[in-house]
Amino acid sequence: MKRHAFSLLLCLYASSALSLDELVKKQEFKLDSFVTSTGKTIKNVRVGYETYGKLNEDKSNAILIAHYFTGNSHAAGKYAETDKAPGYWDAIIGPGKALDTNKYFIIASDTLVNLTPTDPNTVTTGPASINPATKKPYGMRFPLVGVRDFVDIQKKLVDSLGITKLFAVTGASGGAAQAMQWAAQYPENVSKVIGVIGPGLSLPSYTTALLNIWSAPIMLDPKWNKGDYYKKGAPLKGLTESLKLITHSSLSFDWARDNGKGFEKEDQSPLNDFKNRYAIEAFLHTRAEGRAGAIDANSLLYMAKAIQSFNVENALNAIKADVLLIPVRSDLIFPPELSVSSAKTLCESGKKATVKILETTGGHLDGIFKISEAAPAMTEFLEGKAKSCLF
Amino acid sequence: MKRHAFSLLLCLYASSALSLDELVKKQEFKLDSFVTSTGKTIKNVRVGYETYGKLNEDKSNAILIAHYFTGNSHAAGKYAETDKAPGYWDAIIGPGKALDTNKYFIIASDTLVNLTPTDPNTVTTGPASINPATKKPYGMRFPLVGVRDFVDIQKKLVDSLGITKLFAVTGASGGAAQAMQWAAQYPENVSKVIGVIGPGLSLPSYTTALLNIWSAPIMLDPKWNKGDYYKKGAPLKGLTESLKLITHSSLSFDWARDNGKGFEKEDQSPLNDFKNRYAIEAFLHTRAEGRAGAIDANSLLYMAKAIQSFNVENALNAIKADVLLIPVRSDLIFPPELSVSSAKTLCESGKKATVKILETTGGHLDGIFKISEAAPAMTEFLEGKAKSCLF
Repeated sequence: MKRHAFSLLLCLYASSALSLDELVKKQEFKLDSFVTSTGKTIKNVRVGYETYGKLNEDKSNAILIAHYFTGNSHAAGKYAETDKAPGYWDAIIGPGKALDTNKYFIIASDTLVNLTPTDPNTVTTGPASINPATKKPYGMRFPLVGVRDFVDIQKKLVDSLGITKLFAVTGASGGAAQAMQWAAQYPENVSKVIGVIGPGLSLPSYTTALLNIWSAPIMLDPKWNKGDYYKKGAPLKGLTESLKLITHSSLSFDWARDNGKGFEKEDQSPLNDFKNRYAIEAFLHTRAEGRAGAIDANSLLYMAKAIQSFNVENALNAIKADVLLIPVRSDLIFPPELSVSSAKTLCESGKKATVKILETTGGHLDGIFKISEAAPAMTEFLEGKAKSCLF
Repeated sequence: MKRHAFSLLLCLYASSALSLDELVKKQEFKLDSFVTSTGKTIKNVRVGYETYGKLNEDKSNAILIAHYFTGNSHAAGKYAETDKAPGYWDAIIGPGKALDTNKYFIIASDTLVNLTPTDPNTVTTGPASINPATKKPYGMRFPLVGVRDFVDIQKKLVDSLGITKLFAVTGASGGAAQAMQWAAQYPENVSKVIGVIGPGLSLPSYTTALLNIWSAPIMLDPKWNKGDYYKKGAPLKGLTESLKLITHSSLSFDWARDNGKGFEKEDQSPLNDFKNRYAIEAFLHTRAEGRAGAIDANSLLYMAKAIQSFNVENALNAIKADVLLIPVRSDLIFPPELSVSSAKTLCESGKKATVKILETTGGHLDGIFKISEAAPAMTEFLEGKAKSCLF
């Protein structure tokens, strides 16, 4: 009982003293026309964003957050007091937290081809959008876009807010790729980069293949119909398998050992009937099936292509920002060695880079679930007190 | 040129002094009827095997080799001088090698539900076999079998050769699981176990899920037709995706970095056309497509179920054999921590166990391709000179 009361106290403390002062509102950024890095024109581009904290007078305190593969711009706070959970990085965004809203003006942005275009809190433009020329969904006729394009649109959004130079850009996983892309593509416009559970300077070939493998089940489902399923019903079976794969890649051996032991039903051995499952199979399937309805299959294919395209190895010299990389020891998508070797490469090119490895056992997802453990390193880095290039 | 001549010399040396003295012949073991561990009867069971070396008079020098997921009983030697390559573990099987055919009588055995039933050098009984009751392929009506059943059939094969006690049982990956199963199931009939790139004492939940994920693409392919495709054409698209996944899991970040960089065709960026590929995607796809015709999709589903079933955690006390576990540092299917913790558990139960980690960077497949690096540890262990329980 005492223990329970203590937990309750902690919760009250967490939800009153440390959360955002105000409810969050989704905002929308529009472009009449956008030309991609490969020269394709997209009309009526819309992406959503949220802001936390206040922009200071000389507009020098802005931090941009780019989102991860299946995420969106809801990084912190709640839309209504009754929301069950706050944004995904709420543990580090707010007054007195690492991304301190008393100091910084935080902008969290949606990307093109976001996976959840029907979520009322996602604003995106992608294959599920209506093509103004045909009045029908683009499907696979939407132009392919890369991390470069995500960043170009974010740059225009930031410009529209009158901000010339970002104090920092950060993000988890695919968001970390975008943050590093900012430093390479707009070196004059970003001072610091924090890449959490990211690939470093380019997508490793192993993960390039993984993204292709994540995509494959969708295209095997006959309901995918080469991307034209918007009227006929989505390829939910294939999409469910894709999402199972993604969650599996995002977890770890330790997590699965501690959370997925044995049969789904103790008396139903998987050797007795092909339908009987192991607990871990049932967990992954149920979770994937529950999410599939909210995710657009084509957008998953497009996001995979976009993240695969990340590579700033040839733009190293341009980078001016200081860099902090925060991998997770047990990450099976972007193992910490990628961050360490990328930081070394940056330092060898005369840049300032440092690595803080989170020694947690939950795999890639700990970049979200255990992000509070990165807070001290983030604070130190943002305050210019981190030592760089010590390996 | 000098270097070339040197290589040639090495090759000649390797192929004369170290290879098997005689050509290899596939043999066949038959059972009129076999009852599985779950009580199902299978009629007319056939499995293949090969032997290398000679059985000694008191029949005390036999070593059994169980094969891995996609493998068969062709572990060493050639069927004809013109064969392009010898069996998969030829590097450690032969006169003077770790599994020394001057000393040991080696039996390499096929399993039930082998993945390549149409390979003339595989003899197996599984879903692609003709059901004697219906004169049609079993398909998904074949009984589910587990590692226990593989071992039960091997025991009957070994009995049929008049061998009461095996000097050792060994195998790679799924073969390592069978070797450990032998020690738990027939403790009086095996003296030593060598498990290479294996799971240790049970399949980890993370890999249980992985085997399910490997299987999923087959069942998404409409041509799978719930397993009844033998007349209509196999689900080659789904099977190709499954095999891509399996190879991907079997490799490593380092391997992919060194062998799969960049675009498939330098001037065809994957952002220009959805069909353009990265080199690593093309490699995995081409390899998988090339293998798909030789592999039976249903058998892959059955083999996955069989390997998932491996668990001797509750039979620890029965084990009498000494155990050597040889994981690979970069293995992403069965990371070395599994071998270390299993060996510790064995030692805590009063057994003798030791671990030799291969410090190679190629992932799971190094249990085949780099097996020669394990030779000294194997020799030491087989000669009773290995120190155990030192961690």
